[in-house]
Amino acid sequence: MDNCIFCKIINGEIPSTTIFEDNDFKVILDVSPATDGHALILPKKHYKDLNELDKSCSEKLLTIASKIGNGLMDTLGYEGYNIVQNNGEAAGQTVFHFHMHVIGRKKNGESILTWTPHNQEAEIRTEIGNKLKEALTKNN
Amino acid sequence: MDNCIFCKIINGEIPSTTIFEDNDFKVILDVSPATDGHALILPKKHYKDLNELDKSCSEKLLTIASKIGNGLMDTLGYEGYNIVQNNGEAAGQTVFHFHMHVIGRKKNGESILTWTPHNQEAEIRTEIGNKLKEALTKNN
Repeated sequence: MDNCIFCKIINGEIPSTTIFEDNDFKVILDVSPATDGHALILPKKHYKDLNELDKSCSEKLLTIASKIGNGLMDTLGYEGYNIVQNNGEAAGQTVFHFHMHVIGRKKNGESILTWTPHNQEAEIRTEIGNKLKEALTKNN
Repeated sequence: MDNCIFCKIINGEIPSTTIFEDNDFKVILDVSPATDGHALILPKKHYKDLNELDKSCSEKLLTIASKIGNGLMDTLGYEGYNIVQNNGEAAGQTVFHFHMHVIGRKKNGESILTWTPHNQEAEIRTEIGNKLKEALTKNN
């Protein structure tokens, strides 16, 4: 897709540090890593986000993510890894070509992926749950 | 699996707010949500983490995640959503039954999923990239 930085990386117009490649995916290192080896899995075909992903790509992605996560652990001594995938500007997506982050993690490591949980009354949760259940069942 | 809180939720021993269920997955609301409607996708079969997941489960997961993310946007007015999946205690995994978080997000919303990127010399990145590439190609 024109003017998509990840499409340009995939076709080689923009250089990248590629750590894995097959027919469907190119895996590169993030230039602003959360931890060393922070990888981005890019489908070679342009999809904006998870909603656009086609079935064959979606089916293969988590196998690739596991492979990359294990590679990070085996090679760089990590004890765990996070998978993060953001959809929409509101969710922190900055490049609108689907990508999945794989981030190696050590105990007491430098960079903590975090959110602030909030306490929630059980009644509120039930109310929200009922709305979602109805919507998700309708669309099934 | 004995003493697994998510297995007990799946078999109904422990109550939960279930928003979606099919043959393979149960989707519940997190009791300490990052944002309202924060959902956890649980495979009904016990897998410790992404590395243990079998192929048929792995293939279906992102389709479910997309469905839940869209449900959150349509029902609760979110403008985007995050997918997060933690592997290992070092990565913040607290229940050792595979689960995938789906978190609805609004622009300027209350809870920000974040990490601290660090600047990295291109030479360091190339060196790390070479190590990973070698390891990932060997295992291919």
